[in-house]
Amino acid sequence: MFGEILRRVREKAPLIHNITNYVTANDCANILIACGASPIMADDPREAGEITSGCDGLNINIGTLNAQTIQAMRMASEKAFALRHPVVLDPVGVGASKLRRETVLELMRLIDFSVIRGNFSEIKTLASGKSRGKGVDIDIEDRMTEKDPDKMMDFAERFAVDNHVITALSGVTDIVTDGKKTYCIYNGHSMMAQITGTGCMLSALITAFISAVPGKKTLATASAVASMGLAGEQAFEKMKASDGSATFRQYLIDSIFNLTPEALEKGAKYEVR
Amino acid sequence: MFGEILRRVREKAPLIHNITNYVTANDCANILIACGASPIMADDPREAGEITSGCDGLNINIGTLNAQTIQAMRMASEKAFALRHPVVLDPVGVGASKLRRETVLELMRLIDFSVIRGNFSEIKTLASGKSRGKGVDIDIEDRMTEKDPDKMMDFAERFAVDNHVITALSGVTDIVTDGKKTYCIYNGHSMMAQITGTGCMLSALITAFISAVPGKKTLATASAVASMGLAGEQAFEKMKASDGSATFRQYLIDSIFNLTPEALEKGAKYEVR
Amino acid sequence: MFGEILRRVREKAPLIHNITNYVTANDCANILIACGASPIMADDPREAGEITSGCDGLNINIGTLNAQTIQAMRMASEKAFALRHPVVLDPVGVGASKLRRETVLELMRLIDFSVIRGNFSEIKTLASGKSRGKGVDIDIEDRMTEKDPDKMMDFAERFAVDNHVITALSGVTDIVTDGKKTYCIYNGHSMMAQITGTGCMLSALITAFISAVPGKKTLATASAVASMGLAGEQAFEKMKASDGSATFRQYLIDSIFNLTPEALEKGAKYEVR
Repeated sequence: MFGEILRRVREKAPLIHNITNYVTANDCANILIACGASPIMADDPREAGEITSGCDGLNINIGTLNAQTIQAMRMASEKAFALRHPVVLDPVGVGASKLRRETVLELMRLIDFSVIRGNFSEIKTLASGKSRGKGVDIDIEDRMTEKDPDKMMDFAERFAVDNHVITALSGVTDIVTDGKKTYCIYNGHSMMAQITGTGCMLSALITAFISAVPGKKTLATASAVASMGLAGEQAFEKMKASDGSATFRQYLIDSIFNLTPEALEKGAKYEVR
Repeated sequence: MFGEILRRVREKAPLIHNITNYVTANDCANILIACGASPIMADDPREAGEITSGCDGLNINIGTLNAQTIQAMRMASEKAFALRHPVVLDPVGVGASKLRRETVLELMRLIDFSVIRGNFSEIKTLASGKSRGKGVDIDIEDRMTEKDPDKMMDFAERFAVDNHVITALSGVTDIVTDGKKTYCIYNGHSMMAQITGTGCMLSALITAFISAVPGKKTLATASAVASMGLAGEQAFEKMKASDGSATFRQYLIDSIFNLTPEALEKGAKYEVR
Repeated sequence: MFGEILRRVREKAPLIHNITNYVTANDCANILIACGASPIMADDPREAGEITSGCDGLNINIGTLNAQTIQAMRMASEKAFALRHPVVLDPVGVGASKLRRETVLELMRLIDFSVIRGNFSEIKTLASGKSRGKGVDIDIEDRMTEKDPDKMMDFAERFAVDNHVITALSGVTDIVTDGKKTYCIYNGHSMMAQITGTGCMLSALITAFISAVPGKKTLATASAVASMGLAGEQAFEKMKASDGSATFRQYLIDSIFNLTPEALEKGAKYEVR
């Protein structure tokens, strides 16, 4: 089923509007093209609504947010939501500042996102609706919970139900859930944490996948997560001893470019509950 | 003759001021260095005029325009034009929003650009001076025209004459014309559409080439277009089966870095009319 | 000793706040991860102070400064300085505009930077406290001085003493000095000037190194400079005839990723005076 989703991304070639950070914008644009979609980046409030109207989906990433882009996020979100376009939120580093927390919580009040993708720390910040606090205690609690897949699933499912949102929780095991159906995805490689942008690229991929198959958003999200994880495995396999993180990054995008529906179907490792 | 232009770019090493998007800024900077030029990116209105005064040419790209950068574009354009520096315009996605159209049309009223480089859809938006409209009809018309090289040439020549600008029209066949002399350039590879930034990088190259040889701007523009196309062919030839779009992007910049005047002279495929 | 510093960067994994340009932000983030640190980019004034409070060091780079990021630089600098975090300044192209000069001189009045890293032209602009002027005379003076290592060392030491700052002067020979102890570092390769971002990446590395070993900042700065130079040598050695500048950039980051304390200790070429 995952392979069929990828096939439809390549057929439909959705146009994705990204309001994203300048650190990984190039990677996000290239991986969107690599999966069969088309990217446009536009973050001036005066064009954000119009741009998103002409697109198939919207990807919002707060990595380097500022007054101008926050306003563009508001306007594009409302417009996309009114047009029933899929909208993905990547709350990068949301626990790191009040500005990030308030921006994300306001956007979550404004519209229902189709998917929110983040790591445990980020999703937990959203779940608590306030600062995740600081210090060693929280970190220890984080680590304990991450080692317990059942607790992570419970947490993700509760967040999905409470916020009416498909939740894509990135970790050693990736969890995708809409609260009713939950995918545990075992693809991926530890090298993916050795470059910037893996999460940003995945959020862009998810936007493309759910925009191509809006009737099966949970499945499409899981398919995107498995695609990214499988590409990470393939990229690592290509590395020679003298290669490093920059070569890995290149092979990662190459792998998405070369990924076939058949290879995805065969390589995806997951369970459904 | 194309090779001689490249030789002079490497000799003169022009300094190019870029007001460009953050998606492909790194690629543009690297390809400018690769061809023998030097890049500076600067988009605060308070320094845009001063920066461009110290440069040899100006490259304006509206890919992620905003209130601040639009003001910088205005000020740098006027200053560069007054100093008779070559100025290139890349109207990225100009049909996608009113803000983009109005910005570009205002800039075109403000100064005479040396070169405008874009695809058929972008140049057509400028030619009509208003929204290119939406929907299937326009797309069909686009496709019909793109299949007819003679009509494309007529269109580009008319645009060049009407706007007193060298027009670089990117497509399956690239057309460079000043209205009197027209180059049809057959270099290039379809992989170039599988990465972001090919157009942006070409506009940067054109700025470097015409800044190095300002007395032969049409020839220099054609030489830049052929260089980029030839680099695309060479990059594709280097690819192995497991390589993808990210590797292609790397080889593309590598090829510009390694391109010799002799190889360009030999590899350029074009007709003049 | 250089190797021991790298070992501690990998152990401590410092979190580095970067207010930097959008041209090389991706490279800076990736090289920080490659050396064992973690990056965060954040440049809205409303979060700059809070973000830097949660980090171990601050890296300020004026490459594409604007009204918003200048305000963020001010607020983050003051906060980081008050918290005694290491703060690095990279005055990219400071001689190119009044805005850049005034911004940097104001920041230098506001706080004592731990390290200022730049090329001779940039440091000279700061030393004179005003425009470095224009034209051939200055260029000739620059070249004469760069050929005389003793004069360069004297210049760097004087700047360090006058401004109470560790000075990292990049050139054919790299000089790191606090005015009392001076390292002349002979690592590096001319290919490093053929890509954008070598200087920016080095400033990011320096921030990571001094943040991991704040008690030995001069040594840590020299260790970062030697690491970057050695990575440049190793990257060049890996290049094949058909490779170019984009491949070199990839190998450069790969080399930092693969650099061991032992290899750095063995490969570093320097003198102390």
